[in-house]
Amino acid sequence: MNYWIWFPGDFEIYHIMKQNFSREERGFDWPAYWYTPSWNHNVKFKRTYHLKEKTTFTVSAKGKGYVAIKRQHPDGSELVNKFPFEEAITCVPGEITVEVIVCHIEGLPSIFVSGETIYSDESWVASNYIEHDQPVGGSTLFIKKEQNPMVFPYTHEIKMPSNIESVNGGLLLDFGYDITATTQITYAEKFEPITLCYGESRIEALDVNDCYLKQVIKTPEDEGLEQIAKNTFVTRLRAFRYIFLPGVKKDSITITADHQFIDFGGVSQFKSSDKRLNQIWEIADRTFRTCSDIFFLDGVKRDKWVWSGDAYQSYFINKYSFFNKEIVERTILGLRGNDPLRQHLNTIIDYSLYWLISIEDYYQTFGDKKFLENIYPKMESLLQYCNAQTDEHGFIYGKTGDWVYIDWAEFDISGPLCAEQMLLARAYQSVMTIRQALGKPIDDLNERLTKLKANIHRFYWDEEKGGFIDSYESGKRNITKHANIFAILFDYVEEEKVAKIKQHVLLNPEINDIHTPYFKFWELEVMAKIGEYSYVIEQIKSYWGGMLDEGATTFWEYYDPTETGVEKYAMYGDKYGKSLCHAWGASPIYLIGRYLMGVQSTAPGYESFEVAPQVALFDELSCTLPVGEEGQVTIELENGQLMVIANVSGGFLRLANQTIPLPKDQRISIDL
Amino acid sequence: MNYWIWFPGDFEIYHIMKQNFSREERGFDWPAYWYTPSWNHNVKFKRTYHLKEKTTFTVSAKGKGYVAIKRQHPDGSELVNKFPFEEAITCVPGEITVEVIVCHIEGLPSIFVSGETIYSDESWVASNYIEHDQPVGGSTLFIKKEQNPMVFPYTHEIKMPSNIESVNGGLLLDFGYDITATTQITYAEKFEPITLCYGESRIEALDVNDCYLKQVIKTPEDEGLEQIAKNTFVTRLRAFRYIFLPGVKKDSITITADHQFIDFGGVSQFKSSDKRLNQIWEIADRTFRTCSDIFFLDGVKRDKWVWSGDAYQSYFINKYSFFNKEIVERTILGLRGNDPLRQHLNTIIDYSLYWLISIEDYYQTFGDKKFLENIYPKMESLLQYCNAQTDEHGFIYGKTGDWVYIDWAEFDISGPLCAEQMLLARAYQSVMTIRQALGKPIDDLNERLTKLKANIHRFYWDEEKGGFIDSYESGKRNITKHANIFAILFDYVEEEKVAKIKQHVLLNPEINDIHTPYFKFWELEVMAKIGEYSYVIEQIKSYWGGMLDEGATTFWEYYDPTETGVEKYAMYGDKYGKSLCHAWGASPIYLIGRYLMGVQSTAPGYESFEVAPQVALFDELSCTLPVGEEGQVTIELENGQLMVIANVSGGFLRLANQTIPLPKDQRISIDL
Repeated sequence: MNYWIWFPGDFEIYHIMKQNFSREERGFDWPAYWYTPSWNHNVKFKRTYHLKEKTTFTVSAKGKGYVAIKRQHPDGSELVNKFPFEEAITCVPGEITVEVIVCHIEGLPSIFVSGETIYSDESWVASNYIEHDQPVGGSTLFIKKEQNPMVFPYTHEIKMPSNIESVNGGLLLDFGYDITATTQITYAEKFEPITLCYGESRIEALDVNDCYLKQVIKTPEDEGLEQIAKNTFVTRLRAFRYIFLPGVKKDSITITADHQFIDFGGVSQFKSSDKRLNQIWEIADRTFRTCSDIFFLDGVKRDKWVWSGDAYQSYFINKYSFFNKEIVERTILGLRGNDPLRQHLNTIIDYSLYWLISIEDYYQTFGDKKFLENIYPKMESLLQYCNAQTDEHGFIYGKTGDWVYIDWAEFDISGPLCAEQMLLARAYQSVMTIRQALGKPIDDLNERLTKLKANIHRFYWDEEKGGFIDSYESGKRNITKHANIFAILFDYVEEEKVAKIKQHVLLNPEINDIHTPYFKFWELEVMAKIGEYSYVIEQIKSYWGGMLDEGATTFWEYYDPTETGVEKYAMYGDKYGKSLCHAWGASPIYLIGRYLMGVQSTAPGYESFEVAPQVALFDELSCTLPVGEEGQVTIELENGQLMVIANVSGGFLRLANQTIPLPKDQRISIDL
Repeated sequence: MNYWIWFPGDFEIYHIMKQNFSREERGFDWPAYWYTPSWNHNVKFKRTYHLKEKTTFTVSAKGKGYVAIKRQHPDGSELVNKFPFEEAITCVPGEITVEVIVCHIEGLPSIFVSGETIYSDESWVASNYIEHDQPVGGSTLFIKKEQNPMVFPYTHEIKMPSNIESVNGGLLLDFGYDITATTQITYAEKFEPITLCYGESRIEALDVNDCYLKQVIKTPEDEGLEQIAKNTFVTRLRAFRYIFLPGVKKDSITITADHQFIDFGGVSQFKSSDKRLNQIWEIADRTFRTCSDIFFLDGVKRDKWVWSGDAYQSYFINKYSFFNKEIVERTILGLRGNDPLRQHLNTIIDYSLYWLISIEDYYQTFGDKKFLENIYPKMESLLQYCNAQTDEHGFIYGKTGDWVYIDWAEFDISGPLCAEQMLLARAYQSVMTIRQALGKPIDDLNERLTKLKANIHRFYWDEEKGGFIDSYESGKRNITKHANIFAILFDYVEEEKVAKIKQHVLLNPEINDIHTPYFKFWELEVMAKIGEYSYVIEQIKSYWGGMLDEGATTFWEYYDPTETGVEKYAMYGDKYGKSLCHAWGASPIYLIGRYLMGVQSTAPGYESFEVAPQVALFDELSCTLPVGEEGQVTIELENGQLMVIANVSGGFLRLANQTIPLPKDQRISIDL
């Protein structure tokens, strides 16, 4: 495919910088508080061609530079001809090497080579003058010369408010649910000063003093305002459901929203006899799509930073929603940045470990070995970076400047934290899987893993307490659920210990509850994994259903049913700090798809896959889920009959007591 | 001083990137072919104040972000208030910490804080979120809020051609000597297509097909053309003496040049009874000033890249010309880039070593320990980078991708090259001097140096041949002048060996001549150092005088008296590849100042200095040279009487058989 090419990873590093610098709060900009590596400003692209006949091509570029055609003279010397960009270059038959030299101070050095034989595609290599012959980066979204890799091709939809209300001496516009949009202001007569108070909730928008996002427009020349026609102005991109215009009378002004999004498409749908569950699925899917941009974002209103932990959960949801491969690749590359690595991802050790684990998940999901090959050096260097901070037991510990996070919870952080060691072990497994897929040796890592797992059990398992303790150094033997959840999730404990953990930790009211939806994701997954499906479905319906009762049209970052007033919108010490459209709020999609429908890949790229619906939980069901990029499986349940059909081969239907192959395009019906 | 501040080194990294990307050749851009590190895009600035009274300040910034005022609450918690840029912020008395968070994708994050008590100055620190509390960078050239650190405050002078000639059916404009300028084209009536053929020489400008810099302007909208008034257009910045306009008739068009330069000022002057030498001094000084920009450039027409080897020689010339400290600091910082270091400076090992040596020279010249403290970590990391590629003898060798250059000469490069080892030893000495100045231990390095010097003598000294050989590995015992020049220059050989080298190497016609002016710099310095002043003065007069005879108005990159036709303008395989205004062409300033006038710093910052004029060489003399940033010394010779006066203390006049103190402002007269 003929597309724009760049030094691998640079597109993502460029765009993630833009993303992480896009946060706004009450009139100022708030860049992410971590080290932000730069893309390469100086790049050389190269490909050798064996031309059978005369051919012509043209190089377009973002940046400055030239094209060099190198050919061997019969006397053995090298002949070099140089050309500017945008000039048709004709080459006679023979072996030539085309080099394109591009530098760019402000932006991303990138080229588009168009021609019959000579054109930019994945066969080119790039150099930053240190790392040579790197397979170039590219995207199926940038396939035209007229495009600019620094400008993402979003889909746009002009939206009118679904409701306009005169209230508090002004106008309140309701767009129905959260959208990311610029707002276009058209005055009936002429410009007048105006204030836009945005809100994800009605209360926030009406709170003229304290709403999180607000724009006070005093003159047509104000910063952040663009005049696009007489009496028509466009504001900065923001996420909101409501806009309140204090003091504005109806008809003096028209406001429309230019909703900007990526149309991911996708086949997923879920309908069951449980209307509540169906609605949760729909709102979760909207929430997830709204938070899926160039990268998987945490939420859309507040930080919009790309967090490795949040993204890791989004990878799981993606598999049961729109199943997009490029957003996963972009997020993986953007988060990782470049080498040499100078800081843990988002400064958080566990976030580095999730990144390592995510590569195995990527492979299992998409099966793309080419991506593995390209990312592998960055996987290895991150592994080394982590290993450099392990102690004699193989435990990873925090260095100055590192954040040992895991979750907002009260851990005993004296010495290495147990949950981090679980993640480290899991990360080793991931690297080993990838090494094996690429035919690389794993012995060194296997040895590390064996030692680490043994030491986890030796130092952290507390037989008396029936669970893993946070820290073995302090002597406090403090237990939190987190490490115990990981232990089961990663299959690090035998049945007997699982039972103990369940009893003494997971269902023990004396152990602190998980109270972030972030970690609730894993907690519910563990409950599903140990077969507590009814518990899971009940939790989904009460927690997410509770948000629906509050009028949610997208799912929130956090929900506490006991909060009933304006305090329910507060978070991080900010009156409206809570995000009401948050990616991890979409976790029911994963829990339903992965556990209640039981769909999962069992070999890289869904070469084989499993469908194991919990039929006893539903009366009726009509659900379609992706099984690979081209595949889909439909599960229907009606009148006691289960019907399953997949449009690709490799599937198995697993019910309580049987395993039935799912031949391609063949409808399997079973009377239950 | 209240100035713009930035993360230390970033200003230089930003501008050197611009500089190294500014090369142009025959219609295309040619970025430097090495790894180009980026400035920090995300920076936090900080300072704590103990306010005695209420005060107000405002933060201006290049980039996006906010201001945070942190103050301790009586209960011990931290109170944080955030403000946008450009807003007056008032603080009540007490201890506060001001933090300014700035990100910038396309440019340099930088701030200007203005206020009575709170303002940006050298007492602020910066963080890139990995390296914390770094003393900020700043420049005395950016002291106004209205300025932009990304736009350098050049001096501009509009120049008319000094001569206009109708020739070859067009107009040839002569601006008298090389200038770096944009050209302003004003049409008498209306725009017409035009071609500008630039030349440092008349022949080049008239060579419409092959001149190195040319602009064909077809329409007023052409790229690289800016319309600034009706019928008036401005072209890209280029260096030239001549412009030829083929096909243009007199009076249809007016062309002026907007000469852009930095006015360095300075006290240096040199007049003697030798008119030729005076003229050489003048042309050399013009050459040097023309090549001195934000950084010391190699030359002005061709690559304009900042080369560490060329810059190193410029540091020496600077001391006897305009004696500017900031250009040296900018060049040192720009060349070094950031940490972690990924490549030798300009990819060349010897250029890394010159950089290390240059810090000692900086200290001896300017005596500024604050700069030493700030640069020291980068000195240490470059030292470690070099040490990592030394072998068991302590010799430095080239890794893949390294360029072992030294000079354009035929070295025997089997194994480590002798000249590189001389530079490595000299670099160790430099680091040791700086460590001692900063009170750091030197034992480890002293040990390395002792071993290295012993091994240099053991492995490379060839008693039979009377000199150092290039390589001890090949068995060829090849001798070039380079290592032998360094040996004398760095005082690595005793008198007896000096005599041998002089006889068997330096003056031996069987040893290949030095044929680059780059290395001729050191060769002539060595001849001066061993007292061959007449040889030096003769060389200056014949080589540089030869260029004057060729009509040079600035000194060239290379001069071969035997070339008489157009071939004298060729270099690097390009018909007009030779630079006719090249920094190292100004070396007579150094040779005259340092050896013929004998002025040199003998303690950091010219705390003490020496004046040792070779009075026997001159009949009359009237010369003023800098001795430190504020100091100057005047040497006059007339009617057999020598008069020396310095406006600072610490000087000593050394004549053949006596040493005479030079008290401040006191005229010393001596009858010779």
